[in-house]
Amino acid sequence: MIYMDNAATTFPKPEKVYEQMDKFYRQYGVNVGRGQHNLASKASRLVQETRIKLKTLFNCKPEHEVIFTPSATEAINIILQGLTYNYDETIYITHFEHNGVLRTLNHLQEKYNLQIEYIPIDKESLSYDLEEIKYKFQEKRPSKVILNHASNVCGLITPIGEITKLAKAYNAEIIADCAQTAGLLEIDLVADKVDFLIFAGHKTLYGPLGASGFIMERSKALRPLMYGGTGVESANPKLPKKLPDKFEVGSINIHAISGLNAALRFIEETGIQNIRKKEKKLTLKAIETLKKHREIKLYTPDDIENQVGIISFNIPGYSADIIGNFLNENEIAVRTGLQCAPQAHKFLGTDPAGTVRIGLSYFNNLADIEQLDNVLEELLLEI
Amino acid sequence: MIYMDNAATTFPKPEKVYEQMDKFYRQYGVNVGRGQHNLASKASRLVQETRIKLKTLFNCKPEHEVIFTPSATEAINIILQGLTYNYDETIYITHFEHNGVLRTLNHLQEKYNLQIEYIPIDKESLSYDLEEIKYKFQEKRPSKVILNHASNVCGLITPIGEITKLAKAYNAEIIADCAQTAGLLEIDLVADKVDFLIFAGHKTLYGPLGASGFIMERSKALRPLMYGGTGVESANPKLPKKLPDKFEVGSINIHAISGLNAALRFIEETGIQNIRKKEKKLTLKAIETLKKHREIKLYTPDDIENQVGIISFNIPGYSADIIGNFLNENEIAVRTGLQCAPQAHKFLGTDPAGTVRIGLSYFNNLADIEQLDNVLEELLLEI
Repeated sequence: MIYMDNAATTFPKPEKVYEQMDKFYRQYGVNVGRGQHNLASKASRLVQETRIKLKTLFNCKPEHEVIFTPSATEAINIILQGLTYNYDETIYITHFEHNGVLRTLNHLQEKYNLQIEYIPIDKESLSYDLEEIKYKFQEKRPSKVILNHASNVCGLITPIGEITKLAKAYNAEIIADCAQTAGLLEIDLVADKVDFLIFAGHKTLYGPLGASGFIMERSKALRPLMYGGTGVESANPKLPKKLPDKFEVGSINIHAISGLNAALRFIEETGIQNIRKKEKKLTLKAIETLKKHREIKLYTPDDIENQVGIISFNIPGYSADIIGNFLNENEIAVRTGLQCAPQAHKFLGTDPAGTVRIGLSYFNNLADIEQLDNVLEELLLEI
Repeated sequence: MIYMDNAATTFPKPEKVYEQMDKFYRQYGVNVGRGQHNLASKASRLVQETRIKLKTLFNCKPEHEVIFTPSATEAINIILQGLTYNYDETIYITHFEHNGVLRTLNHLQEKYNLQIEYIPIDKESLSYDLEEIKYKFQEKRPSKVILNHASNVCGLITPIGEITKLAKAYNAEIIADCAQTAGLLEIDLVADKVDFLIFAGHKTLYGPLGASGFIMERSKALRPLMYGGTGVESANPKLPKKLPDKFEVGSINIHAISGLNAALRFIEETGIQNIRKKEKKLTLKAIETLKKHREIKLYTPDDIENQVGIISFNIPGYSADIIGNFLNENEIAVRTGLQCAPQAHKFLGTDPAGTVRIGLSYFNNLADIEQLDNVLEELLLEI
């Protein structure tokens, strides 16, 4: 099977991720931070080392803290449900937010009568006009801005740093959902003035499921979403105020974090630029291949520089599911439908049936694209 | 190192758990339920099979649904924060609840002015007097009853079925925290009239971290705690009403669930009675060993039948930490302090320093207890 569903989760993982998880869990599969025996100390050190690797990756300041969560969705919920809202305040989002953001906002909207505004973007070229954004912010000042760093539908990259610069004029809080970009695009938390950065360990970071999280400054206010044991201050009926403990209740997933640790080593050793370079080469090739077939309608930004390796397409007259099934029968795994991002499809005009989505990773190769070409050719002959 | 910290997380796991996780994640490490390719279908089947195994283990009805969560703490939060409360209503808990329950209740108490009452228990013998409980329920009728099935501090088993019978006369809702008992003691969800059963996959179920959850009837009302993508009904700005989707937002941890699946096979093949039998034999031996040393103060129920393999002790005049460190230096891993259950220690009179806790598992053996005996003898000679 040729796997092109990497936007859902990257697969396979680097060999060292599998190896380290198995080895570490067999040797140190204990509960960290809740006692002082040697096995727990060793596991605890690995967790700390992984936090440092992440802080280095996103160019964090010492004041930043990494909080591990089992999924990016949980990180989004902790942040969005933990912030303080004024009744009627304005939240800007991109057209490309995931249901993790959309459904959480929908819940909060009912509670606080939030005004949700979309950051304007040119529909044809899929490019952001900063002047227009500036003008819109002037008209209706942003209180919080949620930025999907790269769309899980069409791969469009949001220019986080530039939009943040405009939003910070209004002292807006910035939340960046980097589920599809952490480890692939260079992200500078300080330069880009991001207040809350969300990462998914099992996507472009090439780690396993279960080790995602977010990064924030320790001094920022955020209410907890969940309550429970922290292994510290156990006699306190309230959660400790200290980060990361305040948000890391219950047992930390040392197994998953050991895999993320190995994945971060893979990224360090390969080089983030080299990963991006290879992924870009494959993306260009895939777009070129798809464009060759005139029946195929592509939903890609005009500027390839603004795209990660996620490509959506359709064949007018045929549902995305039919195409997806045909590809699957021919040993190519893709994802079809709305990909948990219904607003993106509304914007692209591809709802309610959605698109066929190709998600590439560092572990795809040109032969995979050639095979996609062959299967598509066969499909187009048949239909 | 002799590992006696199994109440924190069981270690090691059965060999097949390590094997299946590594193999399955290498072969089918994809995102389930969010597309239709063959790899995802295969992974999806494994998740369904694991739900069925759990339903069989707890003697569920077809109306019951298994909801996976990354941790038992998260399951507790979803349930306790998702229930509806009347202002001033009475919640009964045992003296042995974990901070997962205590801290969540503390948060809710402030919101709803909840009246927290302890289920009475004899301090000396550590045994429940059902007549006294009946009388207390009459005096102050229970609205919800939270029952820690076995204490993570002293191993005391709560007679869930008997207390539930009394509470159901008032139509109280029953929440059973089976973190320390699922897979070890036989639990009958129907006979015991439990409304919400919480399990921790990585403890007595011998699975990995990341695959815990809860079981409830599909028709019961419960608000969601988190919002996000479910892979179904993606165009709906609200969560689907259907279980388990309503509570399983974000990517399911197929890696951890594949391990839990193997762990459940281990329990089926070994037999839950045989696991309990071996654990009881080790527990008896450990208690006998500890009792031999007159300097040691034990906190165990008089009736061994009411105890799982978790034993707390102290040596008066010495802090639990000092004893724990000595054991650790002599290659025995235990847990000291409050073990995230401060009320249990208040009740036992062991706060604020807590106890030394031994947590046994099926993978300990008599030689481990003998070695504990030797090290304790050495310690008692030294101090």
